Amino acid sequence: MTGVKVTGHAALLAELRAVLGRDAVLTDPDVVEGYRHDMMPLASAGRPLAVVLPATRPDVQRVVRAAGAAGVPIVPRGAGSGLSGAANAIDGCLVLSTARMRSILEIDTDNRLAVVEPGVINRDLRTAVEKHGLFYPPDPSSYDWCTIGGNLATNAGGLCCVKYGVTTDSVLGLEVVLADGELLRTGRRTMKGVAGYDLTSLFVGSEGTLGVITRATLALRPLPQAPATLVATFAATEAAASAVSRIVREGMVPSLLEIMDAVSIDAVERHLNTELGAAAGSAALLLAQSDVGGDAGRAEIETLEQVCTDLGADFTYSTTDLAEGRMLLAARRAVLPALELLGRGLTDDVCVPRTRIGELISGCAAIADRAGLTVAVVGHAGDGNMHPTIVYDPDSPAQEEAARVAFDEILALGLSLGGTITGEHGVGRIKQDWLAKELGPVGLRTHRVVKRALDPENLFNPGSMFSMD
Amino acid sequence: MTGVKVTGHAALLAELRAVLGRDAVLTDPDVVEGYRHDMMPLASAGRPLAVVLPATRPDVQRVVRAAGAAGVPIVPRGAGSGLSGAANAIDGCLVLSTARMRSILEIDTDNRLAVVEPGVINRDLRTAVEKHGLFYPPDPSSYDWCTIGGNLATNAGGLCCVKYGVTTDSVLGLEVVLADGELLRTGRRTMKGVAGYDLTSLFVGSEGTLGVITRATLALRPLPQAPATLVATFAATEAAASAVSRIVREGMVPSLLEIMDAVSIDAVERHLNTELGAAAGSAALLLAQSDVGGDAGRAEIETLEQVCTDLGADFTYSTTDLAEGRMLLAARRAVLPALELLGRGLTDDVCVPRTRIGELISGCAAIADRAGLTVAVVGHAGDGNMHPTIVYDPDSPAQEEAARVAFDEILALGLSLGGTITGEHGVGRIKQDWLAKELGPVGLRTHRVVKRALDPENLFNPGSMFSMD
Repeated sequence: MTGVKVTGHAALLAELRAVLGRDAVLTDPDVVEGYRHDMMPLASAGRPLAVVLPATRPDVQRVVRAAGAAGVPIVPRGAGSGLSGAANAIDGCLVLSTARMRSILEIDTDNRLAVVEPGVINRDLRTAVEKHGLFYPPDPSSYDWCTIGGNLATNAGGLCCVKYGVTTDSVLGLEVVLADGELLRTGRRTMKGVAGYDLTSLFVGSEGTLGVITRATLALRPLPQAPATLVATFAATEAAASAVSRIVREGMVPSLLEIMDAVSIDAVERHLNTELGAAAGSAALLLAQSDVGGDAGRAEIETLEQVCTDLGADFTYSTTDLAEGRMLLAARRAVLPALELLGRGLTDDVCVPRTRIGELISGCAAIADRAGLTVAVVGHAGDGNMHPTIVYDPDSPAQEEAARVAFDEILALGLSLGGTITGEHGVGRIKQDWLAKELGPVGLRTHRVVKRALDPENLFNPGSMFSMD
Repeated sequence: MTGVKVTGHAALLAELRAVLGRDAVLTDPDVVEGYRHDMMPLASAGRPLAVVLPATRPDVQRVVRAAGAAGVPIVPRGAGSGLSGAANAIDGCLVLSTARMRSILEIDTDNRLAVVEPGVINRDLRTAVEKHGLFYPPDPSSYDWCTIGGNLATNAGGLCCVKYGVTTDSVLGLEVVLADGELLRTGRRTMKGVAGYDLTSLFVGSEGTLGVITRATLALRPLPQAPATLVATFAATEAAASAVSRIVREGMVPSLLEIMDAVSIDAVERHLNTELGAAAGSAALLLAQSDVGGDAGRAEIETLEQVCTDLGADFTYSTTDLAEGRMLLAARRAVLPALELLGRGLTDDVCVPRTRIGELISGCAAIADRAGLTVAVVGHAGDGNMHPTIVYDPDSPAQEEAARVAFDEILALGLSLGGTITGEHGVGRIKQDWLAKELGPVGLRTHRVVKRALDPENLFNPGSMFSMD
């Protein structure tokens, strides 16, 4: 770092403190440490020049203009719950946290939409709209603490997607601060609209590489009925996978359809003492819900149950009891925490055609054997988005290396099955090479052309998702 | 036109004939005439150099490369059913028709998706997938003859949107020939995926300004149940609008929810002899369907009927009889043909928040009074997408001018109600100035930056949607 740059950086920090206030520009290394990483253990993370906490759109514009003038890159950051390193700091950057922009600005019950700032916690939005009988579907596992801004940047998914789609399906419009500091408004407040390019969808999922989202207009749905829940266990993985295929082919659309493999079941059973008693020793478990309510909901669950039985389930149990349903869902959500008790969990994220789930699970078992590590497969069976999770000892360099190799082998397996290298976690700083493989040279070049057009100086999150060289 | 250009054009035509075959390069003025316009009467249309009919992706690439080298712009064209002039020829261009690329390449029933070429007729795809118990939702009024490629280029909607969304909601991936002739693949075959920018959504609705779509992977849904149908008439427009607001607020999602104003009802009654007897003289009519099927479907229709009665409907009728349902729907679809019997119909397309439909209808009545013309309002009430249709005598310059003024006043009204200047028909060659107003300077600049990045020589559909100056 040259003397000139240090001077430039000092001037930048002074300017930011003058604009935002001293307490909104963090440089204490101990404090900054908490803003360097997201939740992906394998991604690199640099040392930021500072963390800034703008509270308003004009403040975001000022930060972007000042950083642009100083040639200091910006890494936008929500809560840091990401699983790809996309929010990880790079050396000398400004981490722009949206933590102080957390107002729910409007809930329009008549038109079923909400306008929010990016730092709003997913759960807070869910709770606020539920009071009006409304529903914001996207429910990533981290919904207790992740932000809407992070959800938008990663186009987050969750358990709801099989019926309600991913984040982008709930977004009507955005406000984004562009690289030149100007405020772009995309989309609209109406349900339909084709005025101009769909820039809203371009920014959703762009992982902070194209601008800073400062506001979002979100479509809400009617609050679903209390769910009926089904659990089914299978002595053979392929039978469970066949049941998923049959459910898809026959056109059933449950509100949730999750799969756990034997390793996942075992981890939950042994380490969390969760009530999956009858599942112990099973090769696979399917968990489904219907939120249609009433007789129709019960009928939907019964049909799902019949499919599972027909395809060879050795045990099924269905319930409309909410506490039981929650308990079964808690077991599914406990897979990753249970695995963390065995070592560090490295969660992969591939999405395959729904007919290929069985092959993905058996392929992961083979990868686990070769690696000499535990790989548990759990995932959103209804949309084919699977999360094979590799468990390793972070203090063993050999195991960490084996985990990295297994991680890549799972991506190659996903691609070979006609899938994608990321269903919902994103590319970030961990899958850039794989993105290039999936996109191919024309796709990668098109990404660079779009990035260069909107961010010519590579100000936003440089090096994440793809490199510009 | 200079001598040099004529030589260049002759050479281009010779090259195209050599590549595509003589019968795939049309220059006979009488034949070419049929490819100059879409269905928007007010949009300008130039005289193309030729119409080309490539049959394969490599042929599209060759056309794009040859036209690019010759500096001859390309206007991509589906069936010409558009309502914004976006497929209209410009002087000296190549009209690239997708009429010979009409194969349904694959229907994957297990994964519920189809892969199609752009020239496939919407109805042909619907029929083909129905045989497998599957459903392709987008249903623009022209579905009998419009193409999937045109639907993709305009992000077409239809009656289905209130429940099933617009075209972009059914698209998983595209293949697009870019301005340099390279083939870009976007998206994927899986239900979820966040690998890279959402370029699929960027191309959908880009009205042929960014590339030529040569293939699409489309998500299919389970075939819905036979619909139950409700018709309700109101003595006051505001009562019908209030019923729509109540339906939205209470979270009901019918599979269809259409509104007709008094002028529309009258036109259908008097000129098509359609069986809307009880509706004659009503201020407004709501038409709703439920495709849930069985008891649940009947219950949904009954609830909708109750809302209409509570809000002041003076007549309601519901039926599960399919023939009756089809007849009622035919009356709705007959509005535009019926208006065409009175003069030329100029169909506008605004989308407003669903609480503002009443104000839009009364505002259109005031505009009609000022213009001294008939304006009938019909539209997709469930999503706020309204089609005020101005009827005028095309042989009267004064009436045509009054119609143009009324057209613009309706757009201004839509914007003033918090809406957009186009819900589903697009911008094309008729609403460029209005797009600039809706987007604002930053939005327009961002559109130009994206267009320039992907099409630096302005090869595709130049001057449509927005100008580059």
